[in-house]
Amino acid sequence: MTPQPSRRADRARQVADVLRQQIHSGAFDRALPGEAELATEFDVSRNTVRDALALLKDEGLIERAPKVGTHVAQRKYDHGLDALRGLKETLREHGEVRNEVRAARRIAPPPAVARRLRLEPGEPAVYLERLRYLGDLPLSLDLTYLVPDIGDQVLARDLETNDIFALIEQLDGRPLGSADLVLEAITADAHSAATLQVPEGGALLLLERLTKLEDGRPVDLEYIRLRGDRITMRGSLVRPVDSPDWRLI
Amino acid sequence: MTPQPSRRADRARQVADVLRQQIHSGAFDRALPGEAELATEFDVSRNTVRDALALLKDEGLIERAPKVGTHVAQRKYDHGLDALRGLKETLREHGEVRNEVRAARRIAPPPAVARRLRLEPGEPAVYLERLRYLGDLPLSLDLTYLVPDIGDQVLARDLETNDIFALIEQLDGRPLGSADLVLEAITADAHSAATLQVPEGGALLLLERLTKLEDGRPVDLEYIRLRGDRITMRGSLVRPVDSPDWRLI
Repeated sequence: MTPQPSRRADRARQVADVLRQQIHSGAFDRALPGEAELATEFDVSRNTVRDALALLKDEGLIERAPKVGTHVAQRKYDHGLDALRGLKETLREHGEVRNEVRAARRIAPPPAVARRLRLEPGEPAVYLERLRYLGDLPLSLDLTYLVPDIGDQVLARDLETNDIFALIEQLDGRPLGSADLVLEAITADAHSAATLQVPEGGALLLLERLTKLEDGRPVDLEYIRLRGDRITMRGSLVRPVDSPDWRLI
Repeated sequence: MTPQPSRRADRARQVADVLRQQIHSGAFDRALPGEAELATEFDVSRNTVRDALALLKDEGLIERAPKVGTHVAQRKYDHGLDALRGLKETLREHGEVRNEVRAARRIAPPPAVARRLRLEPGEPAVYLERLRYLGDLPLSLDLTYLVPDIGDQVLARDLETNDIFALIEQLDGRPLGSADLVLEAITADAHSAATLQVPEGGALLLLERLTKLEDGRPVDLEYIRLRGDRITMRGSLVRPVDSPDWRLI
C-alpha cells in the first residue's frame, strides 16, 4: 500500500464535501466564513479554499462576488427516502407546490409500461406530464402512467394543486401501500434543461417509481426528473441481521 | 388546464425513460430492437426513436453503430436503498471489488467532521481515500473519516480488498447499527472525472453517509462519488400510516 501524496485537487474535494454538508444542514445562516477563516479551519491553503468554493459554485450551491463574499444560493430541499410521500406533502412547510400540466390524456401505453401496470392487451392508460414548481422555482418534471380505472377519474380532478398520491387515495378511499423505486444521476439534455430552467448538462436525479395500492396492485408508474441543484434525497438504513460479511473474515 | 401538444423532444423523453428501465431490468439481452420495431411499439416516428436513442447514448447506456445496430453498453449495477451494505457485499455476485488506496492516515479533522463523529477538541480522526473498482471499471471514489480508536486499527488491515463496514464489524465484534444518508446528483468536476474515468461534466451520485454502531455511536463519515452511468440506487418505500394528505381533501 503506497498512497500517493494528496494533491491540491484532492484537498479541494475534501473541503468542498464537508462544506456542502454544512450548507445543507443550515450551518451557515447565509454568508460563509471568509477564505482565511476556512483555510485555518480545514488546515489548507487559501488557494485550496478557493478551489473548493469554485466546485460548490459550479454546482449552484453558493454565490461569490468581490467585496460581498460567499453566500449560500437558494437552499436545497430534502425529499424523503424513509417514507412514500408526494412532493406537495414533502414540501408543505416550505410553500405551495404548483403543477403546470403539460399533458393529461388517455393513451395506448407502450407494451413495457402495460406490463408494469399489469394491463390487459389493448387496455388504455392515462398519461400525465407535469412541471412542478415550488413558488417560482421548477423542481421536477414528472411523467406519469396510471391504470385506466383510476386514471380516468384523476383526469377529472384538479391536477394543478394536488399530488397524484392524494388524488388516488381520495378516489380509492384507502392509503397507498408501497412503491418500488430506482434512483439515478443523469445529466440534463437540452430540452429537459430548458424545461427545468437549469443549464444544459446540469445534474438531475431521475426517480423511477412504481406505486401500488394497499393490496399490492400497481397503479402508478412515474419517471421523475428532479433538479440536482435543488433536491437532496435523505433517509436512513439499518444493517441487515443476515449481513454476510461481518462473520466471515 | 390547457395542456400544450406534446412535441418531438417530449415524446423522445417518454420513449427514452421506458427504454432505460427496460435496459436496467435486463429486457434486452444485448441488442435493442430496430428503429422500425421501436417506432411501432411506442407509436412514434422513427425520428423520435432516433432522438430517444441519442439521449440514452449520451448517458453512456447504449452504443450505436451503422449496420451493427444498437447495443446495451456495460450494464449498471444496483446499490441497495433497503439495507446498509458495503460495495463489496453488494456486488459480490458480479465480481471482485478492488480498492486503490489513495490516502490512509491520521489527520486533525475539520471541526464540522469532528462534530459529526462526536470527537473531543484536539482528538484525531483517520482519513481514508479509496478509488473502488469492479474488475477494471472504477465505480466510486470514497472519502472516509473514522473515529480514532477504530480508525487506527483499520489502518493496520488490508484496505485493498475489504469493505470498511466489514473491518469495523470484525474489530467491534458486533454488526453495525444504522446509517443516515443524503443522496444528491452532481456533475463531475475535471479532477473527479479524470479519477473516475468519466467525461468531465458526467453525472455522479454523491452519497453522504454517517454510519453508527449498534449502540448509536457514530464512527464512520463518508463522502462517496458513484458513477451515474454505472450505478443505480434501488429500494422500496412504504406509505406512512400518518400520511397527512389522503384524509384532508
